[in-house]
Amino acid sequence: MTRYALTLEFDGTPFMGLQRQTHGPSVQQAVEEAVEAFCGEQVRMQSAGRTDTGVHAYAMRAHIDLEREWPTFKVSEALNAHLRPHPIAVTHCEIVPDDWHARFSCEGRSYIYRICNRRAPLTIEKNRAWQVPQHLDEAAMHDAAQVLVGQHDFTTFRSVNCQAQSPVKTLDRLNVYRRDEWVFIEAEARSFLHHQVRSMVGCLAYVGMGRWDKQRVAAALETKDRQALGLNAPPYGLYFVSAKYPDKT
Amino acid sequence: MTRYALTLEFDGTPFMGLQRQTHGPSVQQAVEEAVEAFCGEQVRMQSAGRTDTGVHAYAMRAHIDLEREWPTFKVSEALNAHLRPHPIAVTHCEIVPDDWHARFSCEGRSYIYRICNRRAPLTIEKNRAWQVPQHLDEAAMHDAAQVLVGQHDFTTFRSVNCQAQSPVKTLDRLNVYRRDEWVFIEAEARSFLHHQVRSMVGCLAYVGMGRWDKQRVAAALETKDRQALGLNAPPYGLYFVSAKYPDKT
Repeated sequence: MTRYALTLEFDGTPFMGLQRQTHGPSVQQAVEEAVEAFCGEQVRMQSAGRTDTGVHAYAMRAHIDLEREWPTFKVSEALNAHLRPHPIAVTHCEIVPDDWHARFSCEGRSYIYRICNRRAPLTIEKNRAWQVPQHLDEAAMHDAAQVLVGQHDFTTFRSVNCQAQSPVKTLDRLNVYRRDEWVFIEAEARSFLHHQVRSMVGCLAYVGMGRWDKQRVAAALETKDRQALGLNAPPYGLYFVSAKYPDKT
Repeated sequence: MTRYALTLEFDGTPFMGLQRQTHGPSVQQAVEEAVEAFCGEQVRMQSAGRTDTGVHAYAMRAHIDLEREWPTFKVSEALNAHLRPHPIAVTHCEIVPDDWHARFSCEGRSYIYRICNRRAPLTIEKNRAWQVPQHLDEAAMHDAAQVLVGQHDFTTFRSVNCQAQSPVKTLDRLNVYRRDEWVFIEAEARSFLHHQVRSMVGCLAYVGMGRWDKQRVAAALETKDRQALGLNAPPYGLYFVSAKYPDKT
């Protein structure tokens, strides 16, 4: 058995998320079918994160086990050929030790959320960002974001469907900055709760609009009640950026 | 009569180009229909450039004339509402003097061409860039590009359908640079021939692959023969960036 670590880039628009679903297409299913088409083996792909419908990835990490040892270049080329026309690409492939696990070995995940802050609707960036017409005060958003950094019970920012054992997570970084009409929110943690990034972004957008202040964010966190959540930002602005592992990136 | 200057952003994928065509949808037709839906007036839109099928625009400039003087905010909001679901947005609207002409007053046009230089197919950037799997030497491309800068007879880089009276144009700037796996080509001139940017990019890509050298580009230009052209780069990597006018940008 040989374990292959894959780096996946995908447009999440046509998928019901990364994880295999009974009710619609998923990134996992597409990759597993490409593997079978390539070498006839039925595999179960493991990944660093489980993204929702519409959420994108620049560099999701995953692994698959194959009976045979192939040149990694051959694996990525073959998977990319069989993945067409799905908007999923294997951008890197390497052989890893059998105890390397895309999910359990992962020590850090980072996301970026892209807001297009303007009145005009999106064209080139449609399904690639959240368009917010009200002017956002990105400095106030960044300041309020710091309330969420550190170890907290993030129950307020957790989906009702979240399967994590504990709502306590340590958020390492939550930075908000602007470039022209774009506002970016970068989030980094060992792991996140289901909907955590989108929930945090939704509340920060309220702060940017002047509807909430920093104290309100602190109070919402303190309450540990999903009802206190202001807004869940839409999935299409969210991108899985990278996963960190012990030895290398 | 009031003249309104519009700034348009669009995804060129679903259109037969900017200019109205009898055989398919165009940006011009979509905007003109939105104008009629908004105020009942039938107008003929003029624009700074005429882009091809699949070519995008970040900030195309255009103008329309309306009998009535509306607040510009109302015009852009109404057009954006009526333009849905076309991937076209009016990002700016202002009232200009009657002798201001989007096409004839324009003193400079700039384009950017985006190449994704990697083996893996495009996902998030599908239809937004040209994927070139062979490694490109962007320094050699930039060096060869300088052969084309200045006043030349660009017949070699001109479409057979080009309607310009003269093939002589002055290319003000042609810069090639890389950011990670992306190679960008910026072109600036008072005006361009039909297919000129894509033809220049195609030849520069040959240089980047090592198939052509700088001398070959100079020879192709010198020949003034379309047959000497190496390659016409595909339209979906090309973006109209901006148009310059006497008084303001």
